[in-house]
Amino acid sequence: MATVFAAIPGIPAALHRAEKDLPYVAYQEGVVFQLLHADVEAGLWVIRVRFQPGVTIQRHKHTGEVFAFTVQGSWNYLEYPEVNTAGSYLFEPAGSVHTLHVPASNSEVTDVWFAIRGANLNLDAENKVESVLDAGAVLEIYLGLCEAGGHGRPNVIGS
Amino acid sequence: MATVFAAIPGIPAALHRAEKDLPYVAYQEGVVFQLLHADVEAGLWVIRVRFQPGVTIQRHKHTGEVFAFTVQGSWNYLEYPEVNTAGSYLFEPAGSVHTLHVPASNSEVTDVWFAIRGANLNLDAENKVESVLDAGAVLEIYLGLCEAGGHGRPNVIGS
Amino acid sequence: MATVFAAIPGIPAALHRAEKDLPYVAYQEGVVFQLLHADVEAGLWVIRVRFQPGVTIQRHKHTGEVFAFTVQGSWNYLEYPEVNTAGSYLFEPAGSVHTLHVPASNSEVTDVWFAIRGANLNLDAENKVESVLDAGAVLEIYLGLCEAGGHGRPNVIGS
Amino acid sequence: MATVFAAIPGIPAALHRAEKDLPYVAYQEGVVFQLLHADVEAGLWVIRVRFQPGVTIQRHKHTGEVFAFTVQGSWNYLEYPEVNTAGSYLFEPAGSVHTLHVPASNSEVTDVWFAIRGANLNLDAENKVESVLDAGAVLEIYLGLCEAGGHGRPNVIGS
Repeated sequence: MATVFAAIPGIPAALHRAEKDLPYVAYQEGVVFQLLHADVEAGLWVIRVRFQPGVTIQRHKHTGEVFAFTVQGSWNYLEYPEVNTAGSYLFEPAGSVHTLHVPASNSEVTDVWFAIRGANLNLDAENKVESVLDAGAVLEIYLGLCEAGGHGRPNVIGS
Repeated sequence: MATVFAAIPGIPAALHRAEKDLPYVAYQEGVVFQLLHADVEAGLWVIRVRFQPGVTIQRHKHTGEVFAFTVQGSWNYLEYPEVNTAGSYLFEPAGSVHTLHVPASNSEVTDVWFAIRGANLNLDAENKVESVLDAGAVLEIYLGLCEAGGHGRPNVIGS
Repeated sequence: MATVFAAIPGIPAALHRAEKDLPYVAYQEGVVFQLLHADVEAGLWVIRVRFQPGVTIQRHKHTGEVFAFTVQGSWNYLEYPEVNTAGSYLFEPAGSVHTLHVPASNSEVTDVWFAIRGANLNLDAENKVESVLDAGAVLEIYLGLCEAGGHGRPNVIGS
Repeated sequence: MATVFAAIPGIPAALHRAEKDLPYVAYQEGVVFQLLHADVEAGLWVIRVRFQPGVTIQRHKHTGEVFAFTVQGSWNYLEYPEVNTAGSYLFEPAGSVHTLHVPASNSEVTDVWFAIRGANLNLDAENKVESVLDAGAVLEIYLGLCEAGGHGRPNVIGS
């Protein structure tokens, strides 16, 4: 039997969110997400996204690093040959630029967890910054969609 | 149909590892892991761990932050009430101290993906540092176990 | 007498640049800088900047954190009351937005060292992103100005 | 004349500390420091240290990265040939191990600003961890020394 250690006062605790703790809302046609963590001052946001077959996300440049873990389905960045499937790990360094695509031939939802530092700079065809998605922006979007969807105030870590 | 953008020279690319790309090796009785990424100079390591029911990992303190995503099974830190299950996200700040435990009553393997900054300081009962697990140490351990297990040199990101 | 420890093979070493190791080049009228470190994949850039009295830098938003240490002179962000002088430390979190200004009444050059994560999003009056300054952009600018100024290839850390 | 922009509600502000805002206290014989910033959950601490000639600091391993900017004097790590002088920048990656030394022949105080991620693992001759200095430990030490020295509660960023 394992000994139970008490949490020590003054020691930071880990913060947990179960999948059911946070609603999924629509980001764009065919894409829903839950926002698990948004720390504006640290420039950190953690999301889980469910993509319908055939979806494409606007090309963007990252200003910080990204960790992506694929739970189910398949997807790729149009700029790279590798296909992410269940259990894939993808490391996206700062400065990387790519276009997320989910094959139309998929027969199931594609489910991916992302931890993102900094901003997604959404680019137009001339590489101009059309819009910026960062911890503050995604939090505002998520809170608004949750409220509009009758989900109330979600308990996002860091918010 | 989505346009295919070419990778731009000089632009960092994302780095992908499928689950099957890296062998699982034994860390301790009842625990196997794959090392997906180890960047010694950045103090970053990314692992996926499979725990048998009843396993406990030595209590440790983190010097940097950790992201944990649970794929399957259930586990908890003995210091906190929350139970991580499939789809759980856990954020562990720098300075957190805890003891990972997998209930003996589980009927399946528990499968968790972790991205870890800095070191795990493994503590004895008096809070002395008994050993240190960091990107360099885990890489050395993993390479040794892969070679001993006849897996050759694994293609760990950053190594 | 202190014992001399040998550097251990496989252990990362610290990287040093003396002030004279890297040329100062003009960023804009009244502003020269040296680029000490630029790591595109880590989204990190370290610069030292010398400002003439009266200079203003375009308002920008940070996507990551900044450390600023003032060596000499005085300056402030127009959005905040505090004046940075010799020995001041300024921490700029991700998400902060401000406009650097050096008083025209200063009688000496203002000299500031910055370590910057992520990008400066330079904003117009409507908060649109007019341009982006990040590790990759500042490195390209610096290498070009060094070459144009007859300084050859500077030995920037990470480049 | 520069336009004054108002701080925007909800936008993080930069945090300033002038040199005189925080007392210097003794860390060891011949070494005084001020603690400017300590964020336990981010694993970040920022200090400014003044070293008398002849001082040596215990050999340590870093679990995260360090930025060092030298304001005055000269010092080196015994493991490396480079000497840090006024205006030097030193980048210390995670995993680096070294022993700070200030030459006994110096005629002035050596003054260095450090921003440190993670922990300093202070090592004995067999590379065992003798003690750990991190954001939480340095904050506790600093608050205690300030109180003992009659300085009251210092206004450390993040505390």
